[in-house]
Amino acid sequence: MRTSQLLIPTLREDPGEAEVVSHRLMLRAGLIRKVAAGVYAYLPLGLRVIRKVERIIREEMDRAGAQELLMPIASPAELWRETGRWDFYGKELFRIKDRHERDFCLGPTHEEVITDLIRRDVRSYRQLPLNCYQIQTKFRDEVRPRFGLMRGREFIMKDAYSFDRDEEGAKLSYQKMYDAYQRIFTRCGLTFRAVEADTGLIGGSSSHEFMVLAETGEETIVYDEEGTYAANVERAEALPPAGTSTETTRPLRKVPTPGARTVEEVVAFLKTTPQRLVKTLLYKTPSETVAVLVRGDHEVNETKVKKLLGLTDLNLADAETVAALTGAPIGFAGPIGLRHTRIIADHAVTGLRNVVVGGNQADTHYVDANLDRDFSISQFADLRNARAGDPSPRGGGRLRATRGIEVGHVFMLGTKYSQAMGAKFLDPQGQERLAVMGCYGIGVGRTAAAAIEQHHDAKGIIWPAQIAPFHIHLLSLSQSAEVSKAARALYDSLIETGLEVLWDDRDERAGVKFNDADLIGAPYQVLIGDKGLAQGTVELKERKTGEVKRLPPGQLPQHAKTLLRQEIRVT
Amino acid sequence: MRTSQLLIPTLREDPGEAEVVSHRLMLRAGLIRKVAAGVYAYLPLGLRVIRKVERIIREEMDRAGAQELLMPIASPAELWRETGRWDFYGKELFRIKDRHERDFCLGPTHEEVITDLIRRDVRSYRQLPLNCYQIQTKFRDEVRPRFGLMRGREFIMKDAYSFDRDEEGAKLSYQKMYDAYQRIFTRCGLTFRAVEADTGLIGGSSSHEFMVLAETGEETIVYDEEGTYAANVERAEALPPAGTSTETTRPLRKVPTPGARTVEEVVAFLKTTPQRLVKTLLYKTPSETVAVLVRGDHEVNETKVKKLLGLTDLNLADAETVAALTGAPIGFAGPIGLRHTRIIADHAVTGLRNVVVGGNQADTHYVDANLDRDFSISQFADLRNARAGDPSPRGGGRLRATRGIEVGHVFMLGTKYSQAMGAKFLDPQGQERLAVMGCYGIGVGRTAAAAIEQHHDAKGIIWPAQIAPFHIHLLSLSQSAEVSKAARALYDSLIETGLEVLWDDRDERAGVKFNDADLIGAPYQVLIGDKGLAQGTVELKERKTGEVKRLPPGQLPQHAKTLLRQEIRVT
Repeated sequence: MRTSQLLIPTLREDPGEAEVVSHRLMLRAGLIRKVAAGVYAYLPLGLRVIRKVERIIREEMDRAGAQELLMPIASPAELWRETGRWDFYGKELFRIKDRHERDFCLGPTHEEVITDLIRRDVRSYRQLPLNCYQIQTKFRDEVRPRFGLMRGREFIMKDAYSFDRDEEGAKLSYQKMYDAYQRIFTRCGLTFRAVEADTGLIGGSSSHEFMVLAETGEETIVYDEEGTYAANVERAEALPPAGTSTETTRPLRKVPTPGARTVEEVVAFLKTTPQRLVKTLLYKTPSETVAVLVRGDHEVNETKVKKLLGLTDLNLADAETVAALTGAPIGFAGPIGLRHTRIIADHAVTGLRNVVVGGNQADTHYVDANLDRDFSISQFADLRNARAGDPSPRGGGRLRATRGIEVGHVFMLGTKYSQAMGAKFLDPQGQERLAVMGCYGIGVGRTAAAAIEQHHDAKGIIWPAQIAPFHIHLLSLSQSAEVSKAARALYDSLIETGLEVLWDDRDERAGVKFNDADLIGAPYQVLIGDKGLAQGTVELKERKTGEVKRLPPGQLPQHAKTLLRQEIRVT
Repeated sequence: MRTSQLLIPTLREDPGEAEVVSHRLMLRAGLIRKVAAGVYAYLPLGLRVIRKVERIIREEMDRAGAQELLMPIASPAELWRETGRWDFYGKELFRIKDRHERDFCLGPTHEEVITDLIRRDVRSYRQLPLNCYQIQTKFRDEVRPRFGLMRGREFIMKDAYSFDRDEEGAKLSYQKMYDAYQRIFTRCGLTFRAVEADTGLIGGSSSHEFMVLAETGEETIVYDEEGTYAANVERAEALPPAGTSTETTRPLRKVPTPGARTVEEVVAFLKTTPQRLVKTLLYKTPSETVAVLVRGDHEVNETKVKKLLGLTDLNLADAETVAALTGAPIGFAGPIGLRHTRIIADHAVTGLRNVVVGGNQADTHYVDANLDRDFSISQFADLRNARAGDPSPRGGGRLRATRGIEVGHVFMLGTKYSQAMGAKFLDPQGQERLAVMGCYGIGVGRTAAAAIEQHHDAKGIIWPAQIAPFHIHLLSLSQSAEVSKAARALYDSLIETGLEVLWDDRDERAGVKFNDADLIGAPYQVLIGDKGLAQGTVELKERKTGEVKRLPPGQLPQHAKTLLRQEIRVT
């Protein structure tokens, strides 16, 4: 296609709204434009990338035996009420009323709708297994949409739902999807890792996330040295400490700690270490107040706390509640003498002796506090974030930590939805059974954005050939008749060869074209100038390495095709 | 693909919810399922048809020089307020509030969003003309969704928007789209007609609708014998009558017409003809009451009345208003002595003499009423529906009438949106000018449904090959090892030939398979049975004609391909 006929509004300056490189480069290269917070338009180049990612997904889904269908975006509330998610989903669900005041939501996921379709039309074991997928626009009213396509409120997703006769079949379906996801992200040119993950609002018995490794990722993942364990930190298990302190217990003392609230401040003031301090965090739930104790150098994992308490939402107690319970401002809560509060603690608190805890009094802490003697705990559990240096929960050495972008998520749902909605079938013996389900999502736009996070330099994007908007960016470097003629001929013969070519035919300076081509990031550039033509050559430049090869125009298409073929199937 | 692995829930019985044949057959053939009123899921076969229609549209849009992009479904209210359509659009607009109470609508059309994108990024005449299209899910909260995909509340649409430097360029863009639409609907196998149409909620200076001719169509269209004029009846011009009556005026008489309210009743009672009666319809607008007079055998065209009055909404006056104005119940209003009411009339009323009109008194009419002598009219205009037998407004003989399904609509928008939103560019002289716009829509699902309305029989759908979910439906007529083996081999070689094959490999009776195949409507069926195989043949059956040809399996793929090639491009 020709630049002069396409809407590719490249920007020279970094747009202020962008915080991460993929967002910045998608705006600068004219791939997307913001329409509202978390709501974007895909301009022609951006849509080409999206379509390529979709195509890879579609091919691998079909290959894995899944079948494509398309469910509506407007999802009737009745179905969501059957599973309880109409209330459970909270503010992330965009809700609408139609002119007759009937409730709908804009689907963020489609377990309810697919389960309804299946319960209506699948009655026999002979119709199973089934795996249905769709590629569709989804909605989620994020508290804080950001990073462009990374965390949008309207976004394109592939979601698939498998229905099996039994648990064993469901595991097979899950594995097929897991394998398909490995192929999809590999074909998209990404470096990624599958990790164990929390099941969140979807639920089910277990799940894996596919994480693209990138410093700008919003997720922290940990993995062990021997490759036996990898998990999202939300989910990663932290083992209890190996032993118990053998220190002799000292008498409890109450000491003034004026103005020292944070672990750092208290530790500095008392000249001790975070490992000898126990933090007390107060949470307010609908039915009670809960104090969560973790070691001073550990972080509370709220996902684990929520799971333990059976809650979907968890909020720190406000200053008023803290004052009422502890008699002190925030920062001085501790387990000693704390009333009307359930106290739970992370395993690491168990074996400590002579620790510092909050004094439940302004500017005061207890020193040399000891469990059982000075305070008691109603339950111990794994309530902290795993972190680098921890022992692997699978015995594979120490944990390491890195950051990642979640591009895919697969869930073993079991019978959660088929039970709630009565999706039953008759087995060969004529007995009614519940379908065993799995669900499988891929963020299409986020996959494209993640590819940019991994593939770019100071000049712009460096697309993996498989998902590049074009294979070749052809630049005519002057407006001379010779260059125009040669460019047109080369453009035609490149297309004839089956390559996708963007021809910058604008009446612009060569420098402008170079900058735009580097910004847009097609894997190869072809430069046609008067000088080269006089010598019978044009230049083929690899975007990634900057390597230039001079070739006669007649040889270029085949040469370029051979190079690209190493990366992708060119028809 | 294999039937045993696809979700194709065919139904033997007619579903109660369906009123038209396409809706009924789409449900019965397992193409779609209703999720809520006017909201459907596309099952695998249905989605295949939709994708084929989309592909034809995409190819013809690209060929016409349009470029694909994708705008969001959530459309910020601010943009709609700029054009006034936030209020103007009324209840058809699905409106949502996000968690921060910001207003959005779910786009039924995207003039505002595209004009906003263009005004931000297009600044020079060099960037024009531009024609951007998208294929997207749209929303419209219909009062009465019905007929399956024909009139849904969530539906797939192709919408395109052209931006030109001037009126002349805009006309060219319009013509290109008009021509592309002709190719698209022809390629979809439809019999259709482009007609002049009203511009409705979109606005602009002129428009054409593409109407698929079908008795079940919701629209009436008229066209003349010589092919010089065709229009939606909403829009079709009705010429004033050629002459004036030469009758001598008779004295006005008031006569009792007990219980006679309708034209039929009054005409029967007074032993006259509808042509000698003038109907008076009372409308209430926000600012006044308007009486519209048309001849007794004519129908008021409310679209024309609205246009004349500059209104978007028009409602008949209620009984209370009628009683207050006329002193009579509904059915006896007339222009004589009618106060506080603006009286307008259709041209056909001008030349009448000695007519019957309502008496503004219960059970009473005037006979031998005459214009000017007995009542006066503030304005004459074309206010009635054109109808079969009327003279063509372009001199092409008499009008004929037929029914149609609107599948496409093209609009000359002029500067309506660029003016309201300030979409300006600099011309070669450095002067700011407004982009001149057009917009162009195609209902994707409705096109598929219209194809069924035109192509079916008592047994089911007969798909035009271009948009059939599969080219060939292969039926194994027994579960014998020979049939299974031959079917598998033929399935593979048909696919190898580039054909799309649905293989009914289920363990079902031959009769069930025949019925399903006729219902689903692939253009050709291949029947493999034990008898035929013993004689070394299989059967190739054309769905449309039922013609059967016996062939050796080895010859079948090439033969089928040749037949299909006559209709479509098979790769």
